[in-house]
Amino acid sequence: MRMTFIAVHAGAGTHINPLESLCAKAVKASNGDIVRAVKILEDDPSTNAGIGSNLTFDGRVECEAAFFSSNQTVFGAVGAVSRIRNPIVAAYKLAKEQSSAADKRLIVPSVLVSQGAEQWAQSEGVEMCEPDELIIERSLNEWKDAKLLIDRDSKQQLDTVGAVSVDVNGDCSAACSSGGIMLKRSGRLGHATQVGGAVWAEQKGSRSVAVSLSGCGEFIAKTCLSQRIAQGLLEREEDEDLMLNRVRNIFEKDFIHSTLLAFRSSKRLLAGGLVLIYDSNERSRELIAFHNTEHLPFAFGDATSVRKAFSKRTSLSPFIIHSFPSYFCDNPPGSTH
Amino acid sequence: MRMTFIAVHAGAGTHINPLESLCAKAVKASNGDIVRAVKILEDDPSTNAGIGSNLTFDGRVECEAAFFSSNQTVFGAVGAVSRIRNPIVAAYKLAKEQSSAADKRLIVPSVLVSQGAEQWAQSEGVEMCEPDELIIERSLNEWKDAKLLIDRDSKQQLDTVGAVSVDVNGDCSAACSSGGIMLKRSGRLGHATQVGGAVWAEQKGSRSVAVSLSGCGEFIAKTCLSQRIAQGLLEREEDEDLMLNRVRNIFEKDFIHSTLLAFRSSKRLLAGGLVLIYDSNERSRELIAFHNTEHLPFAFGDATSVRKAFSKRTSLSPFIIHSFPSYFCDNPPGSTH
Repeated sequence: MRMTFIAVHAGAGTHINPLESLCAKAVKASNGDIVRAVKILEDDPSTNAGIGSNLTFDGRVECEAAFFSSNQTVFGAVGAVSRIRNPIVAAYKLAKEQSSAADKRLIVPSVLVSQGAEQWAQSEGVEMCEPDELIIERSLNEWKDAKLLIDRDSKQQLDTVGAVSVDVNGDCSAACSSGGIMLKRSGRLGHATQVGGAVWAEQKGSRSVAVSLSGCGEFIAKTCLSQRIAQGLLEREEDEDLMLNRVRNIFEKDFIHSTLLAFRSSKRLLAGGLVLIYDSNERSRELIAFHNTEHLPFAFGDATSVRKAFSKRTSLSPFIIHSFPSYFCDNPPGSTH
Repeated sequence: MRMTFIAVHAGAGTHINPLESLCAKAVKASNGDIVRAVKILEDDPSTNAGIGSNLTFDGRVECEAAFFSSNQTVFGAVGAVSRIRNPIVAAYKLAKEQSSAADKRLIVPSVLVSQGAEQWAQSEGVEMCEPDELIIERSLNEWKDAKLLIDRDSKQQLDTVGAVSVDVNGDCSAACSSGGIMLKRSGRLGHATQVGGAVWAEQKGSRSVAVSLSGCGEFIAKTCLSQRIAQGLLEREEDEDLMLNRVRNIFEKDFIHSTLLAFRSSKRLLAGGLVLIYDSNERSRELIAFHNTEHLPFAFGDATSVRKAFSKRTSLSPFIIHSFPSYFCDNPPGSTH
């Protein structure tokens, strides 16, 4: 592995459009930078992030986004923002500000919301917009329909988009961006602003794990699901189970059958996303994509090649999980062999 | 144990006033209801919660509060609110709304922030106020001094207040309320709105654990500290270590020496709070109070008796931990012995 590997998803949900091509475009154009990749998804009206986000009950757009990097383990998120064109850029800046904060007298916040977040982003030179610029005709029509029905069962359901990456040193990052659930209350925060909810990125010894999750935000947040998946993979013993089985087991134990969600409707226990694992000792890298929603469009690759997929759940397989492992036989940098 | 046991703290920090008496007053007046107890702390200007909260950099009050109950494992929180007189009441209402939400068509949010939270609270009949009503002379003077110095090292530092309770059935709850850190940026969320940050309450089999934490919010949130403490105590094997040692080990491993905080200034790795453990099989209950901040005022009791303490760190003991165990020899209800 000579360059950054990156994977991008367009949301665990129910999709009508083939968004895996958009994911592939984002991977190609990102040059290994997940913020750039997520920005492309935010700028595309067909995703529920940035422009094209779901509308709140009041008919507004309120976005959230998060960035987590294993490099100094920084986490930054913004929530309930309506005037930031690319929320992921603000989340990234907030996280990065912490890297250079060791000598600062005031603690750098991890999460900023609402006008406070918008004012800060503006002062940082982040591109702003009028709230209405984020509203498109599709989301407006879906909002009108939903207000009439208050029942989305048969409709398209778009969810948080996200990306994960790992470079040759094992530095890994995870990002996500979301317009939230249709008809959400104004001021509602989902799983992006929650540490351990939507995103996690951590390097421990020779191992790195980055996770970006999509689905029912409240339940992903409640179960600290991305943190649990990362912890389960970072603390595993040698020669144990397949990574794929580990992720499946954690998803089943800590989400589907979590006692924390015992009183929630099981048909709403929906989630999916990407898990990226890298081990510098084993010289291996593995991307896992999983979901129990109807669909998960995603793509992955590096500077030399990109692959894309539109994963579908079937009635026979309520839970779908894919694994894309890579083993590297090339000599380490500086080797004389 | 025939009634609800409750414990209350006034913040891990540096205190000039003997707030343990206020804690004892809150325990007595609560009748086992932690929301009522935290409301008393919010209404007292000497705490950093509700009236008397620290001011933001812009000189405003922005509060946050959270409520977590093992009864149907509901979590509710509000953040960046300036017009809710008692943020804990709004957090409680948001959590309780989830208990009756199984048949609702729209998912009930867990976290609401800023104006969205305020509008919703108002519609729910929660008492509102003008933002300036939450500002008192002390916080205004401290804010002016801090703006001049931007250095709080030698000053009083007040932090998140909180409470935990457990009843005879093992139903447990945790709550907290905070005015945030002095000079925080507008829109900043601390560890209250973070699931697994400030509060956790869970019942698993015969065991119940409730946790309410205070201290450096960003770091408590990053390490999901309340969730980790609860998990460590709920999943422990029989005949193992003392609870007190378990809490100490988790605090050291997952906070002080957490690799997630490796790049943070160690003098800011400050936290403390209350952990309440109940085991219906062992017929035991244990309250643990700990902190590595300078002080932790707290009180605890039930309808028959209340105890209070002002715990101080010494130069010889950078970490203070107290345990108050109780074993019940009375016969279970309905027993014929």
